Amino acid sequence: MKTGPLLITMGDAAGIGPEIVLRAFLQGRARDCVVVGDSAVMQRAAHRLQPLGVPIALLDEPADIAAVPPGALPLLRPDGLPAGLAELPWGQVDARCGAAAAECIRAAVALVREGRACGIVTAPIHKEALAAAGVPYPGHTEMLQALAAGEDGVLLPVRMMLANEELRVVLVTIHVALRRAIELISFDAVLQTLRIAHASVPGWRGGPPRIAVAGLNPHAGEGGLFGDEELRIIAPAIEAARAEGIAAAGPFPPDTVFMRARRRPGYEEPFDLVVAMTHDHGLIPVKYLGVEHGVNVTLGLPFVRTSPDHGTAFDIAGQGIADASSLIAAIDTARAMAAGAA
Amino acid sequence: MKTGPLLITMGDAAGIGPEIVLRAFLQGRARDCVVVGDSAVMQRAAHRLQPLGVPIALLDEPADIAAVPPGALPLLRPDGLPAGLAELPWGQVDARCGAAAAECIRAAVALVREGRACGIVTAPIHKEALAAAGVPYPGHTEMLQALAAGEDGVLLPVRMMLANEELRVVLVTIHVALRRAIELISFDAVLQTLRIAHASVPGWRGGPPRIAVAGLNPHAGEGGLFGDEELRIIAPAIEAARAEGIAAAGPFPPDTVFMRARRRPGYEEPFDLVVAMTHDHGLIPVKYLGVEHGVNVTLGLPFVRTSPDHGTAFDIAGQGIADASSLIAAIDTARAMAAGAA
Repeated sequence: MKTGPLLITMGDAAGIGPEIVLRAFLQGRARDCVVVGDSAVMQRAAHRLQPLGVPIALLDEPADIAAVPPGALPLLRPDGLPAGLAELPWGQVDARCGAAAAECIRAAVALVREGRACGIVTAPIHKEALAAAGVPYPGHTEMLQALAAGEDGVLLPVRMMLANEELRVVLVTIHVALRRAIELISFDAVLQTLRIAHASVPGWRGGPPRIAVAGLNPHAGEGGLFGDEELRIIAPAIEAARAEGIAAAGPFPPDTVFMRARRRPGYEEPFDLVVAMTHDHGLIPVKYLGVEHGVNVTLGLPFVRTSPDHGTAFDIAGQGIADASSLIAAIDTARAMAAGAA
Repeated sequence: MKTGPLLITMGDAAGIGPEIVLRAFLQGRARDCVVVGDSAVMQRAAHRLQPLGVPIALLDEPADIAAVPPGALPLLRPDGLPAGLAELPWGQVDARCGAAAAECIRAAVALVREGRACGIVTAPIHKEALAAAGVPYPGHTEMLQALAAGEDGVLLPVRMMLANEELRVVLVTIHVALRRAIELISFDAVLQTLRIAHASVPGWRGGPPRIAVAGLNPHAGEGGLFGDEELRIIAPAIEAARAEGIAAAGPFPPDTVFMRARRRPGYEEPFDLVVAMTHDHGLIPVKYLGVEHGVNVTLGLPFVRTSPDHGTAFDIAGQGIADASSLIAAIDTARAMAAGAA
């Protein structure tokens, strides 16, 4: 159970980040959140959603949210943001947007690590804008890992979780060729994934999660007939995890385990999350009902971090039409995880 | 457009096949179908569903279904079925059940190839019972391929399609280790899959199908960054298919293409089916909503053939509790495919 408000970083100022944050706020879905960003950028986005914009309450400290009047947007402005961000065109890569996005993330991590906030929800950033600003990380995950590293610089192992209202999936491998993913599936990689999921994800009903492990091969290898990774690697890793008190089971056939783990009315789901070996085994079922429901969660960091499962959408930025559903789901998920309850 | 009734083979007499066929018939969902099987076996199953059983109309010929009175089960009994099938225990492997199941399939194929029936729906058979009977095929697909081969014995290439009310998926590879599946994905294998799907599957709205091709790697390889099978193999095969007039598009990222192809109210799905490279990329989304809706279709045979997406369920056979949903879906799909309309 963590204390303090949730922080929402504004993301790339030229993308849809600011307007979806505003939309979540105006819909009353972010009342307990403090935006970490630039007030002029947020005001520009507000004017796209309602003629008079919104009153912005500039805070010195996340806890000051308690004194913010209803209807005002609580905002922390990090030092060192570039000037003139709100004059930059929507939908274009700009080094200043990249620098500002990175600065907001740094500030948010500092606050949450000092225990002044309970978690971070990150609005989308743009890879090229970060690169243009000389930020040495391709995305949020790598940057957060670096900011969370100890003084020795050793990075914490992290795992990506994708979640929606009925399914949570933690991935052993992500953005690599499928051939390479198979090579990367090791006893250590699977066991580490189970440990991270066990430590970070509360069960749907509280307590540690009941984890189903999907196999790699059709029918989970059918006893070695269609591949032996289940016998050589995955089953031994599950056994080792169970010896540590982790409620892991499997390996199960990939084609039916997600269906079995699906949380739905009138059904007692036997698992709280599924560990998938590959990017697409895990993401196909999470996205099947629609990307707007998906939330991306980074597990293994020393704080809660979620994000919507989409990018900056430069093609529609500034039009006031971007859908805030995934951001709202990310806020709800972060809130529940910080409370140890989902 | 094919003529004549649909045939339903009874499957393994000791499994749930006979009772789900009866249930579909009693629910009025198989009125235009002729069962190919043993009358005593069907009557034994009927007694599990209603005290008085059902009247059985023994036909000489599928077309005789026109003269069958309402409420009677139209049945063709192949010559050469073993005696005493209805006295064998439920739920046990028996060579006589394997021999009878194979004989029913042979008879059904002969009828449909002579144009006396419009397609075949197969109830589940048991691999071990077939083997015990000396039938040299591990399952339906291999047996149907052999029965459909020309006089030169050359087998027709076939592909498995899994379908439910909102998604149809045709698989390039099936029951092999994932490592091996990657090796099997060739220009020829993908192009042949596209040709078979194009020739066999009507679009949802009639006409040839609009085919989406899923990639193999995360993000469909992200331009070669996460694997090159899309660039080397899949894209050229799609291009070759398009040159032949096949409406194929892709390769698309596996994690979102199934969601995009999902047929649902108020949504204009851009595709009629998805070609998937691997067993689980394709089957995870088809099964996500529940296996009871899934239908298995063999494409590439010179006749329509569908089956429920489950086995003989020996553990519950004879209890009268087996769910006929998947068989009914298989009947509906076969009927629509024979009419060139789904």
